[in-house]
Amino acid sequence: MDQLYITDVALRDGLQNQQIMVATSAKLELIKLLVASGVQSLEATSFVSPKHVPQMADASAIISQLNIDLPNLRASVLVPNMKGLERACAAGVKEIAVVLAATEIMNQKNINMSLETATKMSEQTLRAAKSAGLRTRAYIAVAFDCPFEGPTSPATVLRLSAKMHTAGADEIIIADTIGSASPCEVKKLLSAVVQTVPIARTSVHFHDTRGMGLANAWAALEIGIRRFDASTGGIGGCPFAPGAAGNLATEDLVLMARQCGLHTNINLLGLLAAIDYAEKQLQRTLGGRSIKWLRQQQEKGSI
Amino acid sequence: MDQLYITDVALRDGLQNQQIMVATSAKLELIKLLVASGVQSLEATSFVSPKHVPQMADASAIISQLNIDLPNLRASVLVPNMKGLERACAAGVKEIAVVLAATEIMNQKNINMSLETATKMSEQTLRAAKSAGLRTRAYIAVAFDCPFEGPTSPATVLRLSAKMHTAGADEIIIADTIGSASPCEVKKLLSAVVQTVPIARTSVHFHDTRGMGLANAWAALEIGIRRFDASTGGIGGCPFAPGAAGNLATEDLVLMARQCGLHTNINLLGLLAAIDYAEKQLQRTLGGRSIKWLRQQQEKGSI
Repeated sequence: MDQLYITDVALRDGLQNQQIMVATSAKLELIKLLVASGVQSLEATSFVSPKHVPQMADASAIISQLNIDLPNLRASVLVPNMKGLERACAAGVKEIAVVLAATEIMNQKNINMSLETATKMSEQTLRAAKSAGLRTRAYIAVAFDCPFEGPTSPATVLRLSAKMHTAGADEIIIADTIGSASPCEVKKLLSAVVQTVPIARTSVHFHDTRGMGLANAWAALEIGIRRFDASTGGIGGCPFAPGAAGNLATEDLVLMARQCGLHTNINLLGLLAAIDYAEKQLQRTLGGRSIKWLRQQQEKGSI
Repeated sequence: MDQLYITDVALRDGLQNQQIMVATSAKLELIKLLVASGVQSLEATSFVSPKHVPQMADASAIISQLNIDLPNLRASVLVPNMKGLERACAAGVKEIAVVLAATEIMNQKNINMSLETATKMSEQTLRAAKSAGLRTRAYIAVAFDCPFEGPTSPATVLRLSAKMHTAGADEIIIADTIGSASPCEVKKLLSAVVQTVPIARTSVHFHDTRGMGLANAWAALEIGIRRFDASTGGIGGCPFAPGAAGNLATEDLVLMARQCGLHTNINLLGLLAAIDYAEKQLQRTLGGRSIKWLRQQQEKGSI
């Protein structure tokens, strides 16, 4: 059977915009629950400025503890720039991700840089990370639509993807940051991306704003893409991208994959236990589009 | 641009299992709102026994009034047997649908007949309806999984589809009655169905129990299917099929179709007005997977 590689982003993309501050110990416990459910790759935290994202102020502590408790886990961290990379390296990370928005205005609003400068900074960060022996991921954010510019130029996405590949990104992640894509747009853009960069290095990141998350995932699967971001419980959204709602839920993707004969190594009951825990921490109900059905099956003992 | 043909089933599949009895006048008003939004084909009611489904006791009144108020609407009605067909004809219907479950036990539990007897009854009803000059639709229910038998034999679905086609069905509707299918199962089964019956006569009917409704719709669109059932507000479920949750929501399908460059002639603002009205009647919140986003757009005046 075919293998599907899921990177769970609940701890980073999920938590970064939550109002409630989650304790470091609770984040570590949530990571342990995800690993217990079979998650082998996750985005653990972000080395952004603690002033801008206080939720991520404990990034170094998270990484130090994970290196002791779960040394085999693929724990990736987001680094916004060279300074973030230095902090991440000092903490002992083995994998980093850079985020490059594909439009001028998004870069201006987000990091006060032109697209060109932001691209160069991402290239520099990737090269430095590779030199340091790290595995690297590069997000192409707002790859379909930008909240400020509207539809993103596919040519720009292809150009940036190629640049990130050349700069040494082990994974290029095409991100529908605001969750505006439809499956036909996914099919069109990703078909072109995999002509530009190797399909084995191509990944997708969907938000479920319009309810098309799983349909988009299926469109990507049909192209042959096997690397996906997803967020347990559908926790998520982007504080810097107006209109971004929850991420594609890991449990939704795992359920669909399982029915399609794709291995994820992730156990749905384990994910439900992680969701239970996250709900207590965030003091609200979580879960993707399949959660009602999954809860029913859990009660009946049939998953 | 390509045309997508949606039959809205909110009035029949949607209302048939609602606890709250909806007044005939309110049903007619809801139909008018759907037609005002651009819906051109809908399942208006069901000529089942009023004892079994009291919500449908006003079937004749609905049809008589629609023939006066909306003579150009394609208003289909469900008929369970020859007696239902006679009542429907007497009321002046122009289009009927028969429902044939694809498994032995579902037929036994549902109508106390063997699959063979049920098939013959459906054939007889279709032939009689065609003789009476009616347009006809034939549902193949539990086409993917049966709540009693588990996975349905694809060979049986193909055999029954061919029989319904031969008996004169203008549309053969492959129904995921309990909402258990995944897009790969849809792709597999529907690819075979359209080798057996003309694709222009093939339709699909999805429930969104596991959150895969839109992904399944996309899989069907990719095969080239252009006829879909959907239910405004996602109202639905089947009282006779344990585990069946809401139908694929019309607004979700229209939104995806629009983004994929497919014409539906249906206006999203109009659908939201119909959902508002249905919510008042059913005294609960309705809406598919895109409803939050659609409501936000409505508030901003951007749809």
